[in-house]
Amino acid sequence: MPAGMTTPQPFSFPDDQIATFRAFADRLADAAREAILPHFRTRGLDIENKSKAAFDPVTEADRGAERAMRALIEATYPDHGIEGEEFGVKPSVSGWSWVLDPVDGTRAFVAGLPLWGTLIGLTWQSRPVIGIIDQAYLGERFRGWPGGAEVEDRHGVRPLRVRPCADLREAVAATTDVHLFTPSEAGGFEMVRRTAPITRYGCDCYAYAMAASGFVDLVIESGLKPHDVAGLIPVVEGAGGLVTNWRGGPAWRGGQVIAAGDPRPHEQALVVLRRAAD
Amino acid sequence: MPAGMTTPQPFSFPDDQIATFRAFADRLADAAREAILPHFRTRGLDIENKSKAAFDPVTEADRGAERAMRALIEATYPDHGIEGEEFGVKPSVSGWSWVLDPVDGTRAFVAGLPLWGTLIGLTWQSRPVIGIIDQAYLGERFRGWPGGAEVEDRHGVRPLRVRPCADLREAVAATTDVHLFTPSEAGGFEMVRRTAPITRYGCDCYAYAMAASGFVDLVIESGLKPHDVAGLIPVVEGAGGLVTNWRGGPAWRGGQVIAAGDPRPHEQALVVLRRAAD
Repeated sequence: MPAGMTTPQPFSFPDDQIATFRAFADRLADAAREAILPHFRTRGLDIENKSKAAFDPVTEADRGAERAMRALIEATYPDHGIEGEEFGVKPSVSGWSWVLDPVDGTRAFVAGLPLWGTLIGLTWQSRPVIGIIDQAYLGERFRGWPGGAEVEDRHGVRPLRVRPCADLREAVAATTDVHLFTPSEAGGFEMVRRTAPITRYGCDCYAYAMAASGFVDLVIESGLKPHDVAGLIPVVEGAGGLVTNWRGGPAWRGGQVIAAGDPRPHEQALVVLRRAAD
Repeated sequence: MPAGMTTPQPFSFPDDQIATFRAFADRLADAAREAILPHFRTRGLDIENKSKAAFDPVTEADRGAERAMRALIEATYPDHGIEGEEFGVKPSVSGWSWVLDPVDGTRAFVAGLPLWGTLIGLTWQSRPVIGIIDQAYLGERFRGWPGGAEVEDRHGVRPLRVRPCADLREAVAATTDVHLFTPSEAGGFEMVRRTAPITRYGCDCYAYAMAASGFVDLVIESGLKPHDVAGLIPVVEGAGGLVTNWRGGPAWRGGQVIAAGDPRPHEQALVVLRRAAD
């Protein structure tokens, strides 16, 4: 492994504990689907601005799903913490916390595009252990845990596996919106964009699901919150990929994030991204 | 209607002729689905470069679907022309031509993203009359014809209708990739991007389907070919929207294209886009 990169945390939890939490994470995702789907592609979506500085649509879907998930967690694991995008932080007294982003990609949601997703992460002392990326409209659920990852969709359940990619010059890259980058971040991304033969935009969390599935080689973003990454890190890592910040360090705090299926284009991208790293 | 804009062509074809051609367009879309779906999200996709100048993936899906559609047309309407993205032009001897883009959005296809689509247009003396945007993986088919448009999806068949949008400052805008614009085109688009509260990227033909569905207000692109637009113009117009070039003239030749659900943000965008118009 190249210098400066971190090894994923060596978690060692009892298998039955992981199995129990994985099953519970699915219950959360089911509850979120039920709350969100009736609001997708309905007219007269109630969009509020959370902040006047940046346009950030919040829908009934977002709030309803977080409410439903929080209620389940509080009823089942009262000693677990909760960090939700909509309703803030409940501290953990056990070390475990559920980190929730009910609708990641609210702009895609508003535009009718089925690339938003529900992100559910279970963290142990802030480090993501179990994650789900759920696309309710497509009926696709991507799951990750220590040592594995799988997708459940219309074809059933299959293991997830990243694909090899020897060089950035062969990579499919993705980001959500180049205009979200600062000028120096944009400078770093520009090298990647001009080197990789395909770059896709507007994917939000779905890009990480496609990285875990072996169709996207690099995902590069900045300005992420912990709730943007906790759900997806276990999925990409469980599929054999890596998720780091732009210095090659841990990504669970969010900020500048790069996910890759193969360490080779990851390291090539870091050569320039490091110069724009916080 | 503002000066300089064109009224859509006043087509008057017998209803039963339109009905017959609409049913046949569905047969083409069915054949394309069958040829394409087995290749979506399979590993080891056979990507060839059609041109060394630009990276343009061509898949077996693309070619297989066009072959299947051409065979059906030649067997059923030997006097109709065919303009396909993959296998070129067969001149029309009747005035009618089928304009085919089997996989619009090949980059999305390669990245596993379900926003590519099959575009099928029937033109009369080069003007699009009937159109289909088919998203095979989602099972969504958007149809347009003189005077109407509808979508068929998991929920059944519903009419398509654009939504009102009084001002560019309230619009959801979309384009495929800002890097496809020339510098002067990018300058024009930049005003739209900075004025509209939401801009989405990477949608290809699916953005037009969302405009016809009333979730996207403006789609702005350049460098389009006739086969990129023939299938989608009848869908957007049939849903009550408009599709023009950046001068407000007809869009069926492709090039710089703007689609809108409401003429007001369309006209506001043209104020700046006209300066970059060919």
